[in-house]
Amino acid sequence: MDLKAYLEKKRLQVEEALEIFTLKPQGLLAGHINAMRYSLFAGGKRIRPVICMAVSEALHVDPLPYMQIACGLECINTYSLIHDDLPAMDNDDLRRGKPTNHKVFGEAQAILAGDSLLTYAFELLSSPELADKLSSEDRLRITQTIAKAIGPTGMVGGQSLDIEAEGKSISFDTLKYLHSCKTGALITAAVQTGAIIGKANNDQFSSLTNYGNKIGLAFQIVDDMLNVEGTAEQLGKAVGSDAKHNKATYPSFFGIEKTREMAQDAVKGALESLTGFDDQAEPLRELAKYIYYRKR
Amino acid sequence: MDLKAYLEKKRLQVEEALEIFTLKPQGLLAGHINAMRYSLFAGGKRIRPVICMAVSEALHVDPLPYMQIACGLECINTYSLIHDDLPAMDNDDLRRGKPTNHKVFGEAQAILAGDSLLTYAFELLSSPELADKLSSEDRLRITQTIAKAIGPTGMVGGQSLDIEAEGKSISFDTLKYLHSCKTGALITAAVQTGAIIGKANNDQFSSLTNYGNKIGLAFQIVDDMLNVEGTAEQLGKAVGSDAKHNKATYPSFFGIEKTREMAQDAVKGALESLTGFDDQAEPLRELAKYIYYRKR
Repeated sequence: MDLKAYLEKKRLQVEEALEIFTLKPQGLLAGHINAMRYSLFAGGKRIRPVICMAVSEALHVDPLPYMQIACGLECINTYSLIHDDLPAMDNDDLRRGKPTNHKVFGEAQAILAGDSLLTYAFELLSSPELADKLSSEDRLRITQTIAKAIGPTGMVGGQSLDIEAEGKSISFDTLKYLHSCKTGALITAAVQTGAIIGKANNDQFSSLTNYGNKIGLAFQIVDDMLNVEGTAEQLGKAVGSDAKHNKATYPSFFGIEKTREMAQDAVKGALESLTGFDDQAEPLRELAKYIYYRKR
Repeated sequence: MDLKAYLEKKRLQVEEALEIFTLKPQGLLAGHINAMRYSLFAGGKRIRPVICMAVSEALHVDPLPYMQIACGLECINTYSLIHDDLPAMDNDDLRRGKPTNHKVFGEAQAILAGDSLLTYAFELLSSPELADKLSSEDRLRITQTIAKAIGPTGMVGGQSLDIEAEGKSISFDTLKYLHSCKTGALITAAVQTGAIIGKANNDQFSSLTNYGNKIGLAFQIVDDMLNVEGTAEQLGKAVGSDAKHNKATYPSFFGIEKTREMAQDAVKGALESLTGFDDQAEPLRELAKYIYYRKR
């Protein structure tokens, strides 16, 4: 299959849905909504919503009627990037080659744009417009899954640990836990969300959860590698910024060769968890490999 | 009735529930959870959860089985205070007489503590533990009501407008809209949440919504008045800080006498919307008056 074409088609479907399901700048709130939209429409591959869509397709369910939910995932990802870039956090001036939100709108409005994107995601997830498409039980389960993945014991907890760990010597177990919270949890939640939309049975749900955990792991390991190997253009941010901040990374523990092997193992594990799935899971398989080869 | 005793009893029930339903500091995440808990347990009257409880009582439904939801409201209120106090926002050093979150944990961890409290609220609202007490439909409706109230067209939008308006000349209509978003929306959502828990019929729901709007208005007007009249001890923050920041307030538009009348009218409107309710709504009536007389 042509993954590049598949990703581009899905990405465009996400862009279209984001235009439909997110707010238009108007009235007194135009400034605030513009700040949200600046980062929401700043490009990006829309990997999390695309993963969610690909999982429901692997279960033979068309994801298009459920795009509000996929958009919620992207709002959450965007909020996390805005807050991560803040001066008090990573203090990044560039994101995907463009000035970061706080560089354009100021720190206060950037914090609030992030807050609103996070909150709006839950507005989308609990939207009554989904009532005739998905049971209330399933919608609540999705809300619970995502909330758990991105809160204190998930993404935000991981980011907090990451900042705490800066400049300190941490164990590899801490790094692994930190990564699984910070990056892995939302990716796994995106997979689980697609599994709930696709009415996965218990076996399928746990195989797919395993797939999510493995690609999440691969994603973070590759991110660490790119930070060492990549160019500023590929990353859209300054190369070597992790080293600059004294951050523990996979390469700092294991060197680049061993790190590469670990990423390959994670991808292999992801592929193995899909053995029970038919051709419709081909995009998921290609996606797992793509995470390893992206931007390289 | 003895409102003071009622409020104290309810407050203690909220404190107890917060201990039960929020995270304990342990393991690697202890630092992050401590930052959340520092502000969550920094005192305060727990007005929003208490309002929610009082509304369900007015509908003859015991609120105690639903305390997770009331706790969610308090997590949201606490998150909003942490972010409002940040250097980039109001830059307050004190909140309820104690150092603000960022003064204790630093700016990055304060932003993240707020992010986690917001997210954790949605974890509580969508918790499967509520499944045998409240229908999935009702839980989703509560999630939707609260998300809408605190997002870009609610509380956060209002805060964004407030910052935009600082030092500028704004119309009274803008101030009113800003207040209704920033402060009113969450109070009305707390009332509506209690109404959903209490199985309000349509008429009751709209009367209670009106009650929420009126007490929300009264709350903000009185806040403006206290900022002019109050002492630092009463407010737990520096007096006159609105004037210091050049913020438009009710007193700056109408003077203190006319502002007082407007607050009284709002309370009167709140009481009128409860005419269809029996003795069980007495705490709501007393609460409306209390909002006017608090700390005076």
